[in-house]
Amino acid sequence: MHTIDLGFISLYHTLQCNAKETKLFTVSYWSKRCREVNSRAGFCRSRPVERNIRNKFIASVASTTVQVGILGASGYTGAELLRILSKHPHVQVKVVTAERSAGKSYGEVFGQFQYKNGHNSLPETLIDVSSLLENSKLLNSLQVIFCCLPHGTSQAYISQIPSSIRIVDLSADFRLQEPTSYQKWYGKEHKAVDLQKEAVYGLVEVNRASIRNARLVANPGCYPTAAQLALIPLLKHRLIDPNDIVIDAKSGVSGAGRALRETSLFCEVHEGIHAYGVGSHRHIPEIEQGLSEACGHSVVVNFTPHLIPMSRGILESIYVKLSSGVGITEVRKCLEETYANEHFVTLLSEGIVPQTRFVKGTNHCLLNVFQDRISNRIILFSAIDNLVKGASGQAVQNMNLLCGFPEETALQDVALFP
Amino acid sequence: MHTIDLGFISLYHTLQCNAKETKLFTVSYWSKRCREVNSRAGFCRSRPVERNIRNKFIASVASTTVQVGILGASGYTGAELLRILSKHPHVQVKVVTAERSAGKSYGEVFGQFQYKNGHNSLPETLIDVSSLLENSKLLNSLQVIFCCLPHGTSQAYISQIPSSIRIVDLSADFRLQEPTSYQKWYGKEHKAVDLQKEAVYGLVEVNRASIRNARLVANPGCYPTAAQLALIPLLKHRLIDPNDIVIDAKSGVSGAGRALRETSLFCEVHEGIHAYGVGSHRHIPEIEQGLSEACGHSVVVNFTPHLIPMSRGILESIYVKLSSGVGITEVRKCLEETYANEHFVTLLSEGIVPQTRFVKGTNHCLLNVFQDRISNRIILFSAIDNLVKGASGQAVQNMNLLCGFPEETALQDVALFP
Amino acid sequence: MHTIDLGFISLYHTLQCNAKETKLFTVSYWSKRCREVNSRAGFCRSRPVERNIRNKFIASVASTTVQVGILGASGYTGAELLRILSKHPHVQVKVVTAERSAGKSYGEVFGQFQYKNGHNSLPETLIDVSSLLENSKLLNSLQVIFCCLPHGTSQAYISQIPSSIRIVDLSADFRLQEPTSYQKWYGKEHKAVDLQKEAVYGLVEVNRASIRNARLVANPGCYPTAAQLALIPLLKHRLIDPNDIVIDAKSGVSGAGRALRETSLFCEVHEGIHAYGVGSHRHIPEIEQGLSEACGHSVVVNFTPHLIPMSRGILESIYVKLSSGVGITEVRKCLEETYANEHFVTLLSEGIVPQTRFVKGTNHCLLNVFQDRISNRIILFSAIDNLVKGASGQAVQNMNLLCGFPEETALQDVALFP
Amino acid sequence: MHTIDLGFISLYHTLQCNAKETKLFTVSYWSKRCREVNSRAGFCRSRPVERNIRNKFIASVASTTVQVGILGASGYTGAELLRILSKHPHVQVKVVTAERSAGKSYGEVFGQFQYKNGHNSLPETLIDVSSLLENSKLLNSLQVIFCCLPHGTSQAYISQIPSSIRIVDLSADFRLQEPTSYQKWYGKEHKAVDLQKEAVYGLVEVNRASIRNARLVANPGCYPTAAQLALIPLLKHRLIDPNDIVIDAKSGVSGAGRALRETSLFCEVHEGIHAYGVGSHRHIPEIEQGLSEACGHSVVVNFTPHLIPMSRGILESIYVKLSSGVGITEVRKCLEETYANEHFVTLLSEGIVPQTRFVKGTNHCLLNVFQDRISNRIILFSAIDNLVKGASGQAVQNMNLLCGFPEETALQDVALFP
Repeated sequence: MHTIDLGFISLYHTLQCNAKETKLFTVSYWSKRCREVNSRAGFCRSRPVERNIRNKFIASVASTTVQVGILGASGYTGAELLRILSKHPHVQVKVVTAERSAGKSYGEVFGQFQYKNGHNSLPETLIDVSSLLENSKLLNSLQVIFCCLPHGTSQAYISQIPSSIRIVDLSADFRLQEPTSYQKWYGKEHKAVDLQKEAVYGLVEVNRASIRNARLVANPGCYPTAAQLALIPLLKHRLIDPNDIVIDAKSGVSGAGRALRETSLFCEVHEGIHAYGVGSHRHIPEIEQGLSEACGHSVVVNFTPHLIPMSRGILESIYVKLSSGVGITEVRKCLEETYANEHFVTLLSEGIVPQTRFVKGTNHCLLNVFQDRISNRIILFSAIDNLVKGASGQAVQNMNLLCGFPEETALQDVALFP
Repeated sequence: MHTIDLGFISLYHTLQCNAKETKLFTVSYWSKRCREVNSRAGFCRSRPVERNIRNKFIASVASTTVQVGILGASGYTGAELLRILSKHPHVQVKVVTAERSAGKSYGEVFGQFQYKNGHNSLPETLIDVSSLLENSKLLNSLQVIFCCLPHGTSQAYISQIPSSIRIVDLSADFRLQEPTSYQKWYGKEHKAVDLQKEAVYGLVEVNRASIRNARLVANPGCYPTAAQLALIPLLKHRLIDPNDIVIDAKSGVSGAGRALRETSLFCEVHEGIHAYGVGSHRHIPEIEQGLSEACGHSVVVNFTPHLIPMSRGILESIYVKLSSGVGITEVRKCLEETYANEHFVTLLSEGIVPQTRFVKGTNHCLLNVFQDRISNRIILFSAIDNLVKGASGQAVQNMNLLCGFPEETALQDVALFP
Repeated sequence: MHTIDLGFISLYHTLQCNAKETKLFTVSYWSKRCREVNSRAGFCRSRPVERNIRNKFIASVASTTVQVGILGASGYTGAELLRILSKHPHVQVKVVTAERSAGKSYGEVFGQFQYKNGHNSLPETLIDVSSLLENSKLLNSLQVIFCCLPHGTSQAYISQIPSSIRIVDLSADFRLQEPTSYQKWYGKEHKAVDLQKEAVYGLVEVNRASIRNARLVANPGCYPTAAQLALIPLLKHRLIDPNDIVIDAKSGVSGAGRALRETSLFCEVHEGIHAYGVGSHRHIPEIEQGLSEACGHSVVVNFTPHLIPMSRGILESIYVKLSSGVGITEVRKCLEETYANEHFVTLLSEGIVPQTRFVKGTNHCLLNVFQDRISNRIILFSAIDNLVKGASGQAVQNMNLLCGFPEETALQDVALFP
Repeated sequence: MHTIDLGFISLYHTLQCNAKETKLFTVSYWSKRCREVNSRAGFCRSRPVERNIRNKFIASVASTTVQVGILGASGYTGAELLRILSKHPHVQVKVVTAERSAGKSYGEVFGQFQYKNGHNSLPETLIDVSSLLENSKLLNSLQVIFCCLPHGTSQAYISQIPSSIRIVDLSADFRLQEPTSYQKWYGKEHKAVDLQKEAVYGLVEVNRASIRNARLVANPGCYPTAAQLALIPLLKHRLIDPNDIVIDAKSGVSGAGRALRETSLFCEVHEGIHAYGVGSHRHIPEIEQGLSEACGHSVVVNFTPHLIPMSRGILESIYVKLSSGVGITEVRKCLEETYANEHFVTLLSEGIVPQTRFVKGTNHCLLNVFQDRISNRIILFSAIDNLVKGASGQAVQNMNLLCGFPEETALQDVALFP
């Protein structure tokens, strides 16, 4: 009777208290779900989900709702967060901030919220971020804060949030672990170096165990998410040459945000394509950091993003060289095994190309691998929705981990196609 | 603990068996929901939802899942049905037919189903419609059939479905009540005149009471849905002149379906706009039938559709003359009151124009009304997603009514924007 | 041997001096062209082109090139002017101004000019408008100035231009003849009332005779161009009811210009449609002014513009009531006769709908008329490219008239489709 | 006074017969143009334009018009040919064939031709190709035939064309020089092997000298045009490693033609991106043939095309390794020198990315080169309009060469942006 996204928490109760329901969600289903969760331990394979931890979390969240605040919600990632959270059975969005829109209702900021839809209600009006930080009673009533503030601003405000609140930061401020790297790519000193050290990089399929215990999660960038999901398993297993990685990335325009820039105007984007940020895009150090960690030594990649006349979606076409003696079969097998129990990463059948339209509005990543005509080389494709798996969906996935909810909660949509 | 779309059925049990949950869905919530359902009796205001009927339905569906079949699912409305039903906690899609794709998996027909998402599983392979109709055991295991077959084909197959199965037909075959009207606009005799008489027109907000008891529901066309929701209340209350109605409609390309036509090719649609079917579109008699019924006499309208370079969405700009002595305030008030308790129809705040992008992927209809510069005239705007409220969403809304589920079940999405 | 856009000027010489060319452009061609020009005298039929005037103009321009300046060329109409003028055999663009881009090359402002194409060269760098106005030598070397400055700014600068220079103003500053009307719709007093009186409204097909002798031409707005070309002949001939005109207009996004507005961002426009400026768009008084003049009395219309996810194009669907006793045949005949000799306005064959994509990049207007289902009503469609016939193309057409060049010069492109 | 596309032919006459014109096109201009033509000798640098050849050609074409036929003009390349030829002062399109549209006017096939625009008139009705081939009088009145028939069909019909007629074939039938290569990639034996040997590959900037004397020109494919213009000079000068070339190509949908395919439907293309034909696209052998010739030995490349939701344009992002000891400066210099005198190929300023929208509707190719982050690697970008430089524009450029017209004739448009 219940939707799957209520997960085993609901089922736990249901099974105990409602014998009539056994037709729908039988014990065998329940066991299967437990096995799935247990087996999903990421690449590191270091931390099975233990029964007592799960029980504890069931006890802690079953009787309550998480109170959530969203900072800087006037952009597309903010709206997307609210769309996703509107389906979350355990979340109440209590505060939404937006500087220039303070005092407005959220429906005035985004037309899709000007009428009643979704499951959960929103706060009546937006406030500015300072009003929240100065209102300690309100602030302390929150358990989780999503931070969608611009790069640079994020670090300043997050420092002011009490340590009892868990934070998922969607900016780039805490993604780079090395302060020097941050300074190099962002052109200024980091203002919260301690937090930068504390932050856990929120690429769930790679870092699941650490994220569970984090206080501050640095939600990955959109391009790095697609790139790392394709490449990290192959680098870990030494299947490809780390010195010859070319990532040709294509993104929809929402990646540039809602800021007013001539390059984001409809007439400047429509009916055309071009590369941008060649050799200088700020997602480069983030990608290299993740790949270097997987390799155990420093990696330099080619990353070349292109702007596509569509609103959503990232496709990365990744050109790599196989390690000596390795064939495409090993690559396929590695990806297959790595993601066998991951809900959100799918290796497609042989010969099927990933299309961004088939993940639109979802938290999924579609992967596939093809033989290159040049011998000993292969082509990888990785497709995500930049606003979901590349931003707000992954943020909710992180929150689910932080709070002990099943990871898929509120992230079960079928792609909106056409 | 439960999502709202589980509705009061879930709550009924929950409240009985799980005292700890009262923080989330309290008794006051439950009462409010009951009031909402009671007060939502459509325009006719003739049929309040009675407590004992509700109780009976709760009893009947609470312990079971509806088995559903979908005929002709290789088009966009079929895919959309499956997307929506994937969220439905009380539905199991048991059979999906598609002539040319029989033997394939549904993921081969629509890429968004080639990996695991949504809550519910699909049948492993598609079959052809004859295989279903000849397999009486399989057929009789179904409680509801959605028919997405082409106009003309639908009537032939529906005749062969046992009367115990409830049917929502998304074709135009049963929308026109007069066989002569069907023959005039579709150029051939109707092959199932008896069914045509039996069929109930599935515009929920207008026909809710009759739909509940129907066996065969003729799901409304996309354009007629948008037009009638805006106009029927005003005609019923004699606020506008029925002889001077101009409906300028704009639709996305998915309205033309997935059939191979030169006029649906990307290059023929992109970067341009044109009218089509001027004075001859087959939705005209459907619109006129609904408006005539509202007026009590025959109405002829101008309906002029245009093709817009977008995939989804219908916006209708409707130009009408006020009845003598009537002002825009009365019009506003009429719409406000009519739709006050309707979940899926919203009159926007004064001065806010309905945008199709704010209903994309949802079952909502946004309305508004503006003063015309020509005195005694007003402009109405009505925006829907042609594939949801204009097709598959409304079909599920009808199924919810037929089966006694809360109308919003599986239809709670926030629009996907951008 | 020569292209037609060299027109009869070239031919005049050619025929005189190059006997071998007679195979290509014979005397019969030359006579036909003269007849065409003679017969093309607009609706008023008041001013045939006289041979001696033509001869005089031939004499004056044959030995020279018109030196042209463009003020405010950083927007889309400026770029479009330069695109069109690049084909003009009698024009040299000598000065281009753009405030924020002063000092840059034009290729830095618009990428399509960063390499050598078109026939004519551009000035090396842009200057600001003050630098031009203060440089009297440079200023006086110009014969024609196109003014693409924003509304309000235009009137201030045009006052400072010597009266020897002919001006085509693409802003709205001089379109409304009544200063009170300007003040009402633009919210401020007109700063150059004398010029406002002097200005001639540059809708060529209606006002050809007056434009020829004008000094200052107010280039029509995009929407008013499409509306007036469809309606003025019918109103002049009393074929339709002036009190019941509904203009449902659809425009591409370039109509909003290159200014930074959230509503012009790709993600805000793509995949959706909405009306805007309902009852308040500033093109309303311009349309009403033109129609009122055609009727001989004041006319109020419904004009409702919509934004379409495409870069270029305007389609107006116009719903009108026939005058008593008039049928669609008379309407067709009136349009046919009115535009029989107009190069840029075409009444399509019966039943063919005008599509904006078929005029993209051209100065053409496509018209057609359909019977409404409501008796005594008809539907008119009018399609133009908003940046060409709706702005820069019509501006060049006006310049051609002012300078005595054949009207089609530089405006002969076939639409770019797909 | 004349447009440049009349070229020096016109000028020759003009200067001789019209002394007054010297203000416009002075002797210095004339000399400059001659120098340009002389210096433009392509990569081979083998064939300066000699004065007496030019004089001879002037004599031959000055007094005549080339009669042209177009076979298979119901697709996008056919329409594009007619658009371009409408500006050609030396061409009369005498016959247009289209199988299914025989008997129709061309305006019924493409709406942009349903009214009078362009400079030249078209034949009143289309005929089928057999009717032309059987009508020897009509056939022999033609001097040039453009063949836009499908691959496979082309070779059959071209065999039947008299050898006196020069042919530009836009199909793939004669691009591959090796019959075995054709058989391998197209899955059937070539039916006109002799013609295949005779055909000259029409990549003008590489093959100019041979094309001039050809009878049958195989017009290059769209992808191979963009790839070869970027790579051939670098391979010729041994600046890059021929064994490590990755071409990531992105194309608009018109590249798939006007055929009815599900994958070309608006809803299937819009709002998404995907790769296709990975490792199997038929342009691969054509690219490898050209690059192998430039290297002097066989080359295998990675070529991965992607479909972009736009109508026109190809962008290729090409990832290559520098030869030992070579830096980006040498690469830049090589491209600069190679294309210094080419009208249609432009190396952009350092740091400026080629955008397809800035070549839309034009015959230009924009190139640039960037340093890769991986040392000793560079990134090349090459942007063209697939229907112009990638098809019909290059075909007219070839025709201009064949007939001795200035190469730019009819190809001088500024890109249509936005």
